[in-house]
Order: sequence, then structure tokens, then C-alpha cells
Amino acid sequence: MKTTRLEAFSDGVLAIIITIMVLELKVPHGIELAALKPVLPVLLSYVLSFVYLGIYWNNHHHLFQATEQVSGGILWANLHLLFWLSLFPFTTAWIGENHLATIPTAVYGFVLLMAAIAYEILERVIIAKQGRQSFLARAVGKDWKSKLSPALYLAAIPLAFLSSWAATVLYIFVALLWLIPDPRIEKALERRER
Amino acid sequence: MKTTRLEAFSDGVLAIIITIMVLELKVPHGIELAALKPVLPVLLSYVLSFVYLGIYWNNHHHLFQATEQVSGGILWANLHLLFWLSLFPFTTAWIGENHLATIPTAVYGFVLLMAAIAYEILERVIIAKQGRQSFLARAVGKDWKSKLSPALYLAAIPLAFLSSWAATVLYIFVALLWLIPDPRIEKALERRER
Amino acid sequence: MKTTRLEAFSDGVLAIIITIMVLELKVPHGIELAALKPVLPVLLSYVLSFVYLGIYWNNHHHLFQATEQVSGGILWANLHLLFWLSLFPFTTAWIGENHLATIPTAVYGFVLLMAAIAYEILERVIIAKQGRQSFLARAVGKDWKSKLSPALYLAAIPLAFLSSWAATVLYIFVALLWLIPDPRIEKALERRER
Amino acid sequence: MKTTRLEAFSDGVLAIIITIMVLELKVPHGIELAALKPVLPVLLSYVLSFVYLGIYWNNHHHLFQATEQVSGGILWANLHLLFWLSLFPFTTAWIGENHLATIPTAVYGFVLLMAAIAYEILERVIIAKQGRQSFLARAVGKDWKSKLSPALYLAAIPLAFLSSWAATVLYIFVALLWLIPDPRIEKALERRER
Repeated sequence: MKTTRLEAFSDGVLAIIITIMVLELKVPHGIELAALKPVLPVLLSYVLSFVYLGIYWNNHHHLFQATEQVSGGILWANLHLLFWLSLFPFTTAWIGENHLATIPTAVYGFVLLMAAIAYEILERVIIAKQGRQSFLARAVGKDWKSKLSPALYLAAIPLAFLSSWAATVLYIFVALLWLIPDPRIEKALERRER
Repeated sequence: MKTTRLEAFSDGVLAIIITIMVLELKVPHGIELAALKPVLPVLLSYVLSFVYLGIYWNNHHHLFQATEQVSGGILWANLHLLFWLSLFPFTTAWIGENHLATIPTAVYGFVLLMAAIAYEILERVIIAKQGRQSFLARAVGKDWKSKLSPALYLAAIPLAFLSSWAATVLYIFVALLWLIPDPRIEKALERRER
Repeated sequence: MKTTRLEAFSDGVLAIIITIMVLELKVPHGIELAALKPVLPVLLSYVLSFVYLGIYWNNHHHLFQATEQVSGGILWANLHLLFWLSLFPFTTAWIGENHLATIPTAVYGFVLLMAAIAYEILERVIIAKQGRQSFLARAVGKDWKSKLSPALYLAAIPLAFLSSWAATVLYIFVALLWLIPDPRIEKALERRER
Repeated sequence: MKTTRLEAFSDGVLAIIITIMVLELKVPHGIELAALKPVLPVLLSYVLSFVYLGIYWNNHHHLFQATEQVSGGILWANLHLLFWLSLFPFTTAWIGENHLATIPTAVYGFVLLMAAIAYEILERVIIAKQGRQSFLARAVGKDWKSKLSPALYLAAIPLAFLSSWAATVLYIFVALLWLIPDPRIEKALERRER
């Protein structure tokens, strides 16, 4: 079974998730610039989630480029990841409308954590299918980023109860960490092509 | 006529159906954890429907991998299936918002039943087109799952009037039954490739 | 320029139009069967528009199978068609919520008429690009359906002022007329393949 | 890395953006023709944004036809463009509901400006990747349109404070300017094929 249709379906779901978040930007009733003020925090939380979804799309893209075959397990591990990502519009709107209140900020981090775990599961299921000696297993190697990120989300959740701003800075920091797709896979892919 | 564009269109519709269900998770006005309480049943019904749509996507994927040609009849049988699946967000929100009240639970089962019948029709139309001796006809063989599921949905609908929880347990049971894509098609596909 | 990306984009837009119509099926507040009563006319208008969009998707599919090259003119004629189709959710909800009131029924017919004209323009732009002697031009020939449908829509619009039910019967009649994709193109395609 | 999946994802996002704008066309409560009156300005702003998104889709289509390889930088420049385009439904609804009030009209222009800059960045990142001597670099040459448009948007923003109608005329003028995809790329592509 080839990866094309799984990739197309995932692209579709990710494209919709990233776009329906914008429906939370409620059109203001006023016409003065101040009417945009309540929209601003929603917009900023949208930007953060947009970047996160972009990161997931990029890494998903890389992951399946290094995947040769799809099994039932991979299909469900992928749907599991899409499930957690589909909750982003909900948590994004919640922090946006409540200016990073404690509980919404912690819940936002919880969904980030579950998505990270789901991605890790997906990666492991693919590697298990392809074997420890496969191209992907060697390319990923000791994946410090996907070890560090869940740890940081886990730290951010209790931190939100002390300072939701500090937790948010952690979320932004992890986003910056991932902004560039995994250079090891990219390099390994280039080497393979030669 | 090739199957690619029909698959792409179905993927698009399924991706949208699965994602717009999340719009029913209304952002709570409160900022305490208790504010999530009314969201929880909606979330749980979302999980169930997400799994069901994942199952349909997986089986659809398998079905069309074993399909070589598309006719007008297949196009409409496919649209008929997509129609019933498109009602999932509606029935999902209805049971979620009413904590599995009797009528919503029965209607949820009715839409499940109609989708199962539509899938069965689609399978038969494809087999009729490809001939009783085709690869797909032999792979599907005596399809006990697609015989059992409508029977269980049919049982669940009156059961909902006695106990909507019992009916829901039946829905979950059928979902678990289907969670793994039909191994017969998968095995037959593998055999063909050899 | 190949047709694949234009087809993919059109599939995406059509898949979204067909699916967001379901957002108009507002979840009832009640939990008894009677609560579904106000949903019923919206559901029926949804079925009609679903069939219409299915017809457009099928014919679009056939049309571009017989198209070899895409020009700037074809791109815009296609977007023009998608524009009118994108108004279907609006007019569908309007007739559904108002039980086929006069003006909504007439406006529904007007949008059907504009979509039919847009499809006709698209077909002509493609034929103009490929030449009068092209495969498509010969396959379409004297296209009585696309001549009759706009005439029937045009008749239905004033008819709505006498009886919106009669106008609706006409809309249903045209839908039935088109339900099967153009057999001439299908036959010609089959002949070409031989 | 090939451009197919990036194009498919962008198509998906653009298809959704173009279609969810129609959700802002609120179904009128009345059933007389006058009930459509408040919908009209929203419809007109929808037409303008539909044309703009069509232009971006067409040019994006051309741009990636002349692109051979995708890098991390191109992926993010593309997501950056999609971000600004995703704000179109918001600004479109705002001007539509407020009959081109000053601030909404200026903000509409600001988002147009940012999208134009994002497109310019994307084009430059692609050219930088492919080299100054690449096919695309030579095809684009001195791109007067993408120089003129941001200048016109920049002029329109302060102009909106004098007359929001004059600013809107400028937006329409730029749309007409771009309506036809860049003939230089099209011609160069044709030449290459020979």
C-alpha cells in the first residue's frame, strides 16, 4: 500500500484545521481601530498555532518521504495524531479569548503534549514496520528534539499555574526549536539520492 | 475512467466532515477547569464519530485499491455513501449536547445504519461492474462484518428506547469490530503482488 | 500546462461546498423526534443541492478528462463556475429555512441558472482552445441538455411567483435529467481507448 | 524534495479560504427581495476577495510550475503567504458588513499589502534556491506588476481615510491588473517546451 492517499488525506485535514482556526477571529461590530483590540490576542494565539501546525505539516511531510509502505497500524497512528491536532482550533480560541488564563494555557499545553506523543508513536510505528536498520531509523537516530519537547510541555503545564506567560514563552521556545525541519532526515535523504 | 479523482474527492469530503465536527466543541466562556465539563460529552461523541469516519476512510481506501475502473453507477453509489457520512457532524453534536438522550441516540444509530447500507451498495456496485470472478469479489467473499454491523445498528435503534447507554455500547462494539481494515483484502492484495 | 492541479483545486472547492451545507442543519435544542421537524425542510433542500453539486462534479470530471491543456481563459472560466456553485449553501439554507417561500425559490433558481451558464461558458472556452475538430467538440455535439436546463431554470424563476412548489418540481426534474453523466462523452471516450 | 505535496497542501488551504468566505453570507431572516439588501455589500466584497484569491492561486500555480525543488525556506515562505491569505475572510467580512468604513477598508488594504510582500518573498526565496541564471529568474525578469501592486496598496491605505471608495477602486484596479497570469512566465514555459 502506497503512502500517497494517506498523505493526501492528512494534507486535507491539516489544511482544514489550519484554516478553520480563522473562523474564531470574530468580525468586530465597531469600525474604529479599537474594535480590533479584542481580536488581537485571538490573532496572536492563531499565529502560534499556525506555526505549530506548519511545523507538524513539514515534519509529517519529511517523515512520509522516508516511509515506503503503509500498514493498518500506521493508518491509525496517523489518525491518532490528526485527532489531537484537530483540537488545536478549540484550545487556540480558548487561550485567545481569555488572554492566557491559567487553565486554558495549561490545557493548550496538554493538547500540545498529546500531539507530540502521537507524533512520536507514529514515528515508532513506522520504524517498527521498516525495521531498526531502515533508512528512517538511521536518519532519526537519537532524536533529542522529540525527547525534549514533551518534557518542556510537561514542565509548562504546572508552570501555567504560577505564570501563564512563562508557560507561553516555553511553547514559543519549542516552536522556534522545531521551526526548521529535521536536518538529519534532510541530509540523509540528500545522501541517499547521490 | 480512473479512480484517482474519485478518491481525491472522497478524501476531501471525508477530511472536511472529520474536521468540521470540531466546530461543535464550543469554546467555554469560563476559564476554570469546570468550564470544560459541558464540553466533555461533546468531545466523547466526537471521538466515537472520529473513529467511525477513520474506519470508513480506511475501508474506502482498501476498497478502491481493489477497484480498477469507475462507472457512473460507482460515482453515484460513492456520493450516496458520502451523503450519509456528511450527516455525522449533525447527529454527533445532537447526542453530545444531550448526553445520549433517547431519540438522538436512536437517530445516531439510524445514520450509522444508512451509511453501512450505502457502503454495502457501493461494494456491490463495484463487484457487479468487475464481475463475480473479479479480484475484489473473491477477496471480500462472505463479508460477515458488513452483514453483522447493520444488524447490530438495527438492534441498537429500539434498544436506545430502553437504555441509550446500552445502544451506545453497541455502537462502540461495532467500531472496535471494524477498527482493523479487512485482513482478507489486505492478504489478497499481498498475494496478488507476489 | 496540465489539468491535474486545476482538477485538484476544483475537487477541493466542490468538496468543501458540498460539506459546509451541512453546517446549516442546526442541532435542535429539544430531544424529542418533533425537534427534528424544523430540520426536515433544510435537510430536503440539502439533498437537492447535494445532488446538483454531485452532478456538477461528475460532469466537471468528464469534461476535464476530455481536456488536454489548460489556458488562462480556462482557469478563469473554471473559477467563474466555482463562484456560482459556492453560492449554493447560501440559497439552499434560505429555501430550507423558509419552506420554499417565493423569493428564496426564485433566487435558488437564479443561482442554478448562473451556474449552468458558467458551465456552458467553460465548455465553450475549452472547445475554443482545442478547436472545433477536437475530440471534445465532436463528443459534445448538439448538447440538448445544456440547452434545455437553462431554459427550464429561466421558466422556473417566474413560475416560483405562481407556485414555488411547481418551480421546485422543475428543479428536481432537471436534476433527474442530469443524474447520469453525459453518455456521449463516455461512449466517445470508450471508443477512443479502443 | 518534490513540489507536489506543497502544491496539494496550498491548493487545499486556498480552496478552504475561498469557500469559507461564503459562510459570512448570513442567511436572511426575511423572505422578500429586500431581505437580500444587507447581504449585497457582503456579496460584493466576497466577489472582490474571490477574484484576489483566484489571482493568487493562478500565480502560485505558475510559480511552482517553474520551480523544480522545495527547500525548508520555500516551505516556510509558502506558509507565510498562506497565513496572510487566510486573513482574507476576516477582512472581507469586516468591509462587507460595514459598507467600506474607513478603518476596515484600510485594514483590508494592509492585509493585501502583506500578502503581496509574502508572495514577493516566496518568489525571491525560490529564485535564490535556483540561482540567478535559473529559468524562473529569467522568466520573471523585471517584475513591474509585483513592484507596482504593493506601492498601490501602500497608497490606498492612507487614501481610505480620505475616501474609502477611492481606496476600493484602487484595489479593484490592481485585481484587474493581475487578472491575467504573468504572460512572461507562460511564454517562457511555452518556449522551454519547444
